[in-house]
Amino acid sequence: MTISRREFTRLTALGLAAHSSLPVLGQAAPKKIGYCIIGLGRIADHHMRGIAQSSTSTITGLVSGHRDKAEKIAAQYGVPKSSIYSYEDMDRIRENKAIDAVVNCLPNSMHAEYTIRSAKAGKHVLCEKPMSATVLEAEDMIAACKANKVKLMIAYRLHYEPITLKTIELIRSGAIGKVQAIDSANGFNIAPGEWRSTHVLAGGGPMMDVGIYSLNATRYLTGEEPVSFTAVATTDKDDPRFQGVEENLAWTTRFPSGAVASCATTYGAQMPGYYKVFGSKGWLEVASFHYDGQRLRASYRADSKAPVTTIDETIPAKDPSQFVAQADHFSRCILEDKTPNTDGQEGLRDMKYIQAIYRAAGITMG
Amino acid sequence: MTISRREFTRLTALGLAAHSSLPVLGQAAPKKIGYCIIGLGRIADHHMRGIAQSSTSTITGLVSGHRDKAEKIAAQYGVPKSSIYSYEDMDRIRENKAIDAVVNCLPNSMHAEYTIRSAKAGKHVLCEKPMSATVLEAEDMIAACKANKVKLMIAYRLHYEPITLKTIELIRSGAIGKVQAIDSANGFNIAPGEWRSTHVLAGGGPMMDVGIYSLNATRYLTGEEPVSFTAVATTDKDDPRFQGVEENLAWTTRFPSGAVASCATTYGAQMPGYYKVFGSKGWLEVASFHYDGQRLRASYRADSKAPVTTIDETIPAKDPSQFVAQADHFSRCILEDKTPNTDGQEGLRDMKYIQAIYRAAGITMG
Repeated sequence: MTISRREFTRLTALGLAAHSSLPVLGQAAPKKIGYCIIGLGRIADHHMRGIAQSSTSTITGLVSGHRDKAEKIAAQYGVPKSSIYSYEDMDRIRENKAIDAVVNCLPNSMHAEYTIRSAKAGKHVLCEKPMSATVLEAEDMIAACKANKVKLMIAYRLHYEPITLKTIELIRSGAIGKVQAIDSANGFNIAPGEWRSTHVLAGGGPMMDVGIYSLNATRYLTGEEPVSFTAVATTDKDDPRFQGVEENLAWTTRFPSGAVASCATTYGAQMPGYYKVFGSKGWLEVASFHYDGQRLRASYRADSKAPVTTIDETIPAKDPSQFVAQADHFSRCILEDKTPNTDGQEGLRDMKYIQAIYRAAGITMG
Repeated sequence: MTISRREFTRLTALGLAAHSSLPVLGQAAPKKIGYCIIGLGRIADHHMRGIAQSSTSTITGLVSGHRDKAEKIAAQYGVPKSSIYSYEDMDRIRENKAIDAVVNCLPNSMHAEYTIRSAKAGKHVLCEKPMSATVLEAEDMIAACKANKVKLMIAYRLHYEPITLKTIELIRSGAIGKVQAIDSANGFNIAPGEWRSTHVLAGGGPMMDVGIYSLNATRYLTGEEPVSFTAVATTDKDDPRFQGVEENLAWTTRFPSGAVASCATTYGAQMPGYYKVFGSKGWLEVASFHYDGQRLRASYRADSKAPVTTIDETIPAKDPSQFVAQADHFSRCILEDKTPNTDGQEGLRDMKYIQAIYRAAGITMG
């Protein structure tokens, strides 16, 4: 069973609950927020396809070290050649009135530098997760955006994904009762030579890259902030992929309500992402954290005599729908001067928790 | 898809790999091991139905505090009234030649006393898990059985369950590659007034009762012993069910190979048991730890170019099949003078690990 188009629309709207309507400038078409994409790797492709489909957003600039690649993409999205920048001269985006915001798609360790440069250029910033390579960098990013009066949003795309929103709504409604435990995992078998396994670029391993999905999920599922963490990590130092970052990591969390979480991440195994939430009245499970295909299964009942309610729903929308919703959210925040649901503070919290997890596991981050 | 009868037979035989054939005493029927059941609660019912179906085992005695109940059960299984004992006079089983062994179905805190009394009466002991309420008791039980030259087996029924055995075989064959992480949970929403939530009877909470399945699974799945644990526990002290034992517990484990595990247990939520194993070449999942219905799902491939192998098999055998296989195993060990696969040492190891988990969570056991 998949959720209906009507419900999909309703749930998508939930992700944009802060927004009532788009301002209409006279009789002209609604203003679209112009985005400059910084770094044209894999994740940038998802963002660009999403922005292109968003009614509130458009691509108006590119920053890349590869001029040829950038020109091809510029032609594809109708970006003038004059709005293609190198990393060296990207501060010139300040003069480009067509650029309202940037999307920071660079490796983790470059998030701070390019977010701060963009903020100084007066542009709003949508930055990929993890927010940065260190807690200090995250704090610097928030300060720079504040000082330059630009908005900062971290690209936690699942906060704008209908199945995720429905799951949170289901938990808040009390359907599965008191949340007692969450079990989550997310990882993959990394190819050799990826920047993500280079400490100086990534700041950490799978915990920062994909474990962050489980960590963030335990927070939005409970609606609480963790009290403490325990963790263990192991790394095969003979494997050339793991000279700089951890290979496997398992952690536990405790929340003020008494809910506990047990989670795992890896760069050394196939580990399709999921979370399971166990409550006093039932359980639910969502797989996966991927770009589409979220499936929610649930089973619960009010009491031992009540009939059991079961859910098995898969989101029909395909990639880049999450990126459309995410771009829409940030564009509307800019247009209506609202704070994004997943602002810099949200990213900073995860950075602090990752630091706590790494410390518990005896790992140095950043 | 369910596994074929032929494969079921083959896998069941694997669990009995130490045994070649039954000794035939002349032309007489093969000797059956006579079991005296101590404690006639829920779990005893499973054991009795299993023993009754086992070709190597038979019920020859009962120990109960409820004579009426015992007489009804005795009639059902053809046990003479003279072989019904009270807890006070059960040491008289020594004189009963029809009783070769006992099945200890009492609450955890009574495992030690009744195992030791049975050993002193010269009877072999099949004892429920967890082996005892404390590590010291487990050590005393092993010593008493050794001193009295009787065998001690802990009722880890899944060690004799075909899907579990196939899963272990699959992992050992290297099908899913190097095991990097295991994620497991097992718990339930306990009813008020159960002996299992009374500390003095249980020695601990869900960790000892049902979390032990996840703990034991991480060991048989890796074929390794844990190096260390971290853990967190939470308890709602306003809930009358949790005045003596923990409510929720999450833990991590690290193994010498580098595999990590993240697990959770609870007495406060519906938490259908399962484990997921993530390897360098694929993953597998088994649900549940229950008396029947084990389902194995797997997906793996030799390398990124090889075709993906998928498995989705459910055991056709119904309860009490696990108890039949378990009784068979112990009876054959007695008949052939072999050490049970799940002997006292296996039970003691889990008790030590539970102690380590409780210590990590700041809980006192026993």
